[in-house]
Amino acid sequence: MNIILLSGGSGKRLWPLSNDIRSKQFIKIFRTGCGEYESMVQRIYGQIRRVDPKATVTVATSKSQVSSLHNQLGEEVSICVEPCRRDTFPAIVLATAYLQDVLGVSEKEPVVVCPVDPYVEDDYFEAVKKLSELAGQGESNLVLMGIEPTYPSEKYGYVIPEQKGALSRVATFKEKPDVRTAEEYISQGALWNGGVFAYRLGYVLSKAHELIDFVGYQDLYDNYRTLNKISFDYAVVEKESRISVMRFGGSWKDLGTWNTLTEAMEEPSIGKAILNDNCENVHVVNELDVPVLCMGLKNAVVCASAEGILVSDKEQSSHIKPYVDEISQQIMFADKSWGSFRVLDVEDESMTIKVTLNPGHRMNYHSHERRDEVWTVISGRGRAILDEREQEIAAGDVLRMNAGCRHMVIAQTELKMIEVQLGREINVHDKIKHAFPEKA
Amino acid sequence: MNIILLSGGSGKRLWPLSNDIRSKQFIKIFRTGCGEYESMVQRIYGQIRRVDPKATVTVATSKSQVSSLHNQLGEEVSICVEPCRRDTFPAIVLATAYLQDVLGVSEKEPVVVCPVDPYVEDDYFEAVKKLSELAGQGESNLVLMGIEPTYPSEKYGYVIPEQKGALSRVATFKEKPDVRTAEEYISQGALWNGGVFAYRLGYVLSKAHELIDFVGYQDLYDNYRTLNKISFDYAVVEKESRISVMRFGGSWKDLGTWNTLTEAMEEPSIGKAILNDNCENVHVVNELDVPVLCMGLKNAVVCASAEGILVSDKEQSSHIKPYVDEISQQIMFADKSWGSFRVLDVEDESMTIKVTLNPGHRMNYHSHERRDEVWTVISGRGRAILDEREQEIAAGDVLRMNAGCRHMVIAQTELKMIEVQLGREINVHDKIKHAFPEKA
Repeated sequence: MNIILLSGGSGKRLWPLSNDIRSKQFIKIFRTGCGEYESMVQRIYGQIRRVDPKATVTVATSKSQVSSLHNQLGEEVSICVEPCRRDTFPAIVLATAYLQDVLGVSEKEPVVVCPVDPYVEDDYFEAVKKLSELAGQGESNLVLMGIEPTYPSEKYGYVIPEQKGALSRVATFKEKPDVRTAEEYISQGALWNGGVFAYRLGYVLSKAHELIDFVGYQDLYDNYRTLNKISFDYAVVEKESRISVMRFGGSWKDLGTWNTLTEAMEEPSIGKAILNDNCENVHVVNELDVPVLCMGLKNAVVCASAEGILVSDKEQSSHIKPYVDEISQQIMFADKSWGSFRVLDVEDESMTIKVTLNPGHRMNYHSHERRDEVWTVISGRGRAILDEREQEIAAGDVLRMNAGCRHMVIAQTELKMIEVQLGREINVHDKIKHAFPEKA
Repeated sequence: MNIILLSGGSGKRLWPLSNDIRSKQFIKIFRTGCGEYESMVQRIYGQIRRVDPKATVTVATSKSQVSSLHNQLGEEVSICVEPCRRDTFPAIVLATAYLQDVLGVSEKEPVVVCPVDPYVEDDYFEAVKKLSELAGQGESNLVLMGIEPTYPSEKYGYVIPEQKGALSRVATFKEKPDVRTAEEYISQGALWNGGVFAYRLGYVLSKAHELIDFVGYQDLYDNYRTLNKISFDYAVVEKESRISVMRFGGSWKDLGTWNTLTEAMEEPSIGKAILNDNCENVHVVNELDVPVLCMGLKNAVVCASAEGILVSDKEQSSHIKPYVDEISQQIMFADKSWGSFRVLDVEDESMTIKVTLNPGHRMNYHSHERRDEVWTVISGRGRAILDEREQEIAAGDVLRMNAGCRHMVIAQTELKMIEVQLGREINVHDKIKHAFPEKA
């Protein structure tokens, strides 16, 4: 099975866990068998590998997610990077061309496109595999997965099949309806459109060549910025007559809001939390080191992270976006290609952060124009290079870099440092990258 | 007016603002006229000064509160320190002897004893002044303030007066009753006993000499540990027949729980907070740098501090104590005689804290046996002494103290430092104090 996982952009609906630089699919919130936590993307990746160990999985995403994907799925995961956002048609065409030119998938082979964020069980990927096989048989140009509705939702588009069987030609598509209309659709046998579909690779490429003048993956990548924004639904799905829908009746949840996300949590709390006996239907996600105490709450979600604290009635939590838009966000935590950082303290003329470098990783060789920095290594060991001079460093070492000093660290083990930034204009944009010194 | 303010111990009922080392009376939660916030003790001290600018105010408290009292009320505030806890009779006798021997108050002068934590308006201290005058007239040995009950509370003791007038002899005292009994008392004209009373200084001293063998204040202080624990009510009040009660009908609130404390807040939130329109009767106190977002909550209090986060139904918040007892508290923030500290990060073999020294203050000259420390000065200037060697320090300076190194800082301006502690056994008890070096 060749599968393209569409890993969408940042979202504010799960603030303070998700924000401009941290997407919901990377939040570690699901219990694994061995008592650890994993993220949506880790969960889905594991499920695919379990159902089809030979699956070719490619994540189609933006550059900003590459570090997080490598951190969570390993360095070997196949990633097709969109140079900029151009809606789903260009993104799917780019990933399809990537499959052909980079991974060597042939025109006859089926490809499945699937969002990265549904909360499902393994039977879902059994169905995805079946979808792929159906597309490979070529009787339809497109085969969609239709999810049996559990309630008349206003959040999803609907697919109305011609017949009631497991597989049917599509009669028509319907946009997100109001509840009453949704009830009518469901009485007509409509299914939710979960955004999962399969096709033969050559089919999408021929559609692409009708609309875009390009040679292959690299050419498309280089000229991606010039493409028009257009959705795959509009460009392809709605115009296709040889299109079928396969019914899926298993468990499927869209974890886009706190309300639905907490339904997928196996325990009432993650992190340090105390809930008294008078709490009912309360979920706590606490990423801080200090405890959260909840008393007498009903139908509420509490989430505390380095970015802020949410306390919300579960129903109302879906209306969070405008409030988060108001919050001017100093990013307090970020995953990077080399590890992570967390802001510990902000003053007018200083900022203190904790830097964690993953074993074997290094930061860019860089300098700052308007700030000095002091590193105190608190654990691990590695090598630092300051103005081309290399030195071994370990817990307890203190390094001072004045403005202009070129510096970097290579971690041998996991290496943690407290970095104190000092200056009148501390700014993430004050960073000049330099070529790595030869000895590094 | 000579007034003794009883400043009681730490409390957990307002966790995470109050805890083992931070008492509720020091929490800055009340708006002043000029848009700042002040604490209970600051508010009450200002009210007394307004009503009687010449009042002699002495705070009777334990050693642990001396720093906070000086920080909040200034260096000149009169403080009578109890060497250890011995209940209210010894504490009031000690403070009364302090008034005589240290402040030179004569035996005939009236003294008022008042708890530090009622939330009242200026008319309350007008009444306290009147109480003092009545005691000075000497018709009764003790004059109590009786607060007109606003509901049949189970939280207070009751005083039943002989007559209904403004001033009356006390018929009898009643312990905290159940609601039904409280209703009966109130129908008989009972008043709440708010713990405020006045006497002539010589009266309490003579009672004291009947029960305790001591010469004067210093002798009592030196032998304080040997005294029996006994309450002033039991030792004096309940045995006194020449005792009156003065009725007070003004505003009086006891801010011992989140439920009552939030009633005294003028605004729904202190600190960074967003409450959506669907919140009803919600109060937020946020001492953190990141925002709290509340959506669709009813009758709730949210409090976030460096120690933890409380989210509670207001009614239930009064039952907080057993839950806070469960929380093993690493103290994350503390006011000290010289400034304050805040824990920023805790790892197995390091701890990072932010230290703020007030201008003109210095820390003890000390060393640690099992940890190294690194200071990075982030603002201000002062002088540091490391192993008797003195140096000027200012923002940007980095100092490293290995285990065993004697060190201290004297702040010239407000001085802030990031202190990284490094070692396998980081512990507050690993601190050896040394005599100040001569040059300091």
